[in-house]
Amino acid sequence: MSKNVQEQRMQALVSLCRRRAFIFQSSEIYGGLNGCWDYGPMGVELKRNVKDAWWRDMVMGREDVVGVDCSILMNPKVWEASGHVQSFTDPMVDCMQCKGRFRADHIENQQCPTCGSKNKFTEVRHFNLMFKTHVGALEDSSSVAYLRPETCQGIFANFDNIVSTSRVRVPFGIGQIGKAFRNEINPRNFTFRSREFEQMEMEFFVSADPAEAAKWFEYWKQERYQWYLSYGLTKERLHLREHAKDELAHYAAGCADIEYDFPFGRAELEGIANRTDYDLRRHSEFSKKDLTYFDDVSKTRYFPHVIEPSAGADRATLAFLIDAYAEEKDEKGETRTVLRFHPRLAPVKVAVFPLVNKDGMPEKASQIHAALKKKWNSFFDDKGAIGRRYRRQDEIGTPFCVTIDGESLSADTVTVRSRDSMTQVRVAAAQLVAHLEKDLG
Amino acid sequence: MSKNVQEQRMQALVSLCRRRAFIFQSSEIYGGLNGCWDYGPMGVELKRNVKDAWWRDMVMGREDVVGVDCSILMNPKVWEASGHVQSFTDPMVDCMQCKGRFRADHIENQQCPTCGSKNKFTEVRHFNLMFKTHVGALEDSSSVAYLRPETCQGIFANFDNIVSTSRVRVPFGIGQIGKAFRNEINPRNFTFRSREFEQMEMEFFVSADPAEAAKWFEYWKQERYQWYLSYGLTKERLHLREHAKDELAHYAAGCADIEYDFPFGRAELEGIANRTDYDLRRHSEFSKKDLTYFDDVSKTRYFPHVIEPSAGADRATLAFLIDAYAEEKDEKGETRTVLRFHPRLAPVKVAVFPLVNKDGMPEKASQIHAALKKKWNSFFDDKGAIGRRYRRQDEIGTPFCVTIDGESLSADTVTVRSRDSMTQVRVAAAQLVAHLEKDLG
Repeated sequence: MSKNVQEQRMQALVSLCRRRAFIFQSSEIYGGLNGCWDYGPMGVELKRNVKDAWWRDMVMGREDVVGVDCSILMNPKVWEASGHVQSFTDPMVDCMQCKGRFRADHIENQQCPTCGSKNKFTEVRHFNLMFKTHVGALEDSSSVAYLRPETCQGIFANFDNIVSTSRVRVPFGIGQIGKAFRNEINPRNFTFRSREFEQMEMEFFVSADPAEAAKWFEYWKQERYQWYLSYGLTKERLHLREHAKDELAHYAAGCADIEYDFPFGRAELEGIANRTDYDLRRHSEFSKKDLTYFDDVSKTRYFPHVIEPSAGADRATLAFLIDAYAEEKDEKGETRTVLRFHPRLAPVKVAVFPLVNKDGMPEKASQIHAALKKKWNSFFDDKGAIGRRYRRQDEIGTPFCVTIDGESLSADTVTVRSRDSMTQVRVAAAQLVAHLEKDLG
Repeated sequence: MSKNVQEQRMQALVSLCRRRAFIFQSSEIYGGLNGCWDYGPMGVELKRNVKDAWWRDMVMGREDVVGVDCSILMNPKVWEASGHVQSFTDPMVDCMQCKGRFRADHIENQQCPTCGSKNKFTEVRHFNLMFKTHVGALEDSSSVAYLRPETCQGIFANFDNIVSTSRVRVPFGIGQIGKAFRNEINPRNFTFRSREFEQMEMEFFVSADPAEAAKWFEYWKQERYQWYLSYGLTKERLHLREHAKDELAHYAAGCADIEYDFPFGRAELEGIANRTDYDLRRHSEFSKKDLTYFDDVSKTRYFPHVIEPSAGADRATLAFLIDAYAEEKDEKGETRTVLRFHPRLAPVKVAVFPLVNKDGMPEKASQIHAALKKKWNSFFDDKGAIGRRYRRQDEIGTPFCVTIDGESLSADTVTVRSRDSMTQVRVAAAQLVAHLEKDLG
């Protein structure tokens, strides 16, 4: 697709997200806050489904992973140990002419992008991307705290607590879902690069044998790549890219990105890193606590090495949205917009319609809706022509629409219309749950 | 119970929470951060279950409520409109002798609680409880933003977006679960009063008729009180307390607290408030946006009134923990510690044990565990005497333990032991899921 077509596709999705209550600008009535977004009634269910899928597949459903939920505000020494206080910075310059501030590496030909002045910049200063605040009654250096820029450090800080209280044995993982914050100078691409975002991170602790770490690094690369495929991302748009040696952080023994072809370009959904024993060693050093692990099989004590699959919940949600988005001809040859979500991710699983609002159809439809709602997020709609009701559900990605018509009352049947094939089948009302279960689980 | 017994009970719970991986101090290896807590492997599942129960009962399971998930950082004008910038303050004084800082209303007899100096205090200053940070590259007054001190303002700011994009009609609600932050001068009572906490809030919009608002206020008071009972809180410890007129915020037409008798005293779990049309009017005024609602039945335009049930997820979790906690005699007359969680809230639903690690029992137990794990959070344990394994599950509140013994292999049966009654029944392996479903749902 050409760049223009891609831009239109992205604009159409952003517009749909607003129109159908997936994603709004934060505090929009006040002009918004750059880099912050709100999930509306459809978006919140979609994102909950993405996070629940990750939790079920990565934590609760596994024998070798436990979960944790750490606070966003932590003791600031955590960020000294992690290196963020010193090194989590962007190089910035000010234009002395117009006072604008820019990333030094984004200035071309020493010319100000705002006022056009040349060679009027201050020296480069290093701007820390962590949001800073003060905890307690005093507002001085002793009370500084940061909004965590990543969730994983809470896992490292709890490593010893979890080893000593939970029945975990290397190799094992600790997973977490939670908000993180980065004061990005230039938030962009809708929810892709935002200042407030949610991570789904897991630290998988393995033995100190590099071959063992390399094996698990391979395992998690494949496992995570497959995860996105299993929830429906198009394989041709999903890429696993191994980092070159000169891209690696100084402590990392390997890193790979799972990338997706967004309309704005190929970009990272998730990073899988072999972080070696860097983090536990650093926290051990800075906290003066022994964070080694005693292996009761080999009877040795060591710092476990760590494989980290680190995913963005907002990025995954955005990828599922854009990948599901299609404009195509409907049954009548008219254009329909449809979100082809995987059934487990769809915010609404089934919609129930009385064909007309009389002859007992609304009552029957309400009964069926109430029964389905015990099991799935079901939506009742009795407004407008049936074709328009299908279109409204297509637009939010509802996999099935159940219609109650005249025959429903005489023969106790309903029609079930599939979002993707747009075909309808007639099903006995008593068989409806079993029929839907095949796809909705 | 005497004060001393209550204190011991609280200490025993705090100790259990740490020992069994429910709740740890945040960044404990660095000495912690006052007022911040981390949920460990058991705690994260418990709190997830509490939040999921609220979401299902208050949002997804209802016809008249939709959900939202707003950002923590919002345009600062939100907090001017809400009144927080001006009035969300505590009165503070400094001791000129020792430089200590205290809440003015906590100083008795004008004597410093730290150094004992009398009448050495500065004038009262008003200390804002919102955490402040700066967004963007400049750190000046133009870039100030706050960590939200409550989630509800994101709902009000999105009112018009949701009305115009979702099929909602007064009366209807918008629910949200999310973190909020308050720079409490004196965090205390474990997770009860912390600086970082999670709220479960719903704004229910009703017509401008005060009688209608009063009716819904009554409805939500009862509904929310019953909610805590339905998940097992002891009725004698749960109280619904109507605020006296002089306790009400100036804009409120009514307020009631749901209180629980914690070991440290009776304290608020949730507030239900009739906030009138104050919030929508204020945001309309400050944003210059029309936030009135057009009622297509009465053909009138008005600011809806709002009933707000506002619950604390951490407080609810703490109440479910302390209420479930018991020390009692077990089958053998020995003391056992048990958490009598409602089955829906229990972090682990069922544990599976081979009686001994031989004769095919571990293999059979593993098979059964794998089958149960598809449906529930199941835990496999083959370590130690069977009695000790029961005790370990009692301590984390697992409702059922399934044991595979010699007879399991010959007759394809298992024993199911109930946490609460400590009785065992023998069940055909093929009937196990159906047997557990009766209680686990």
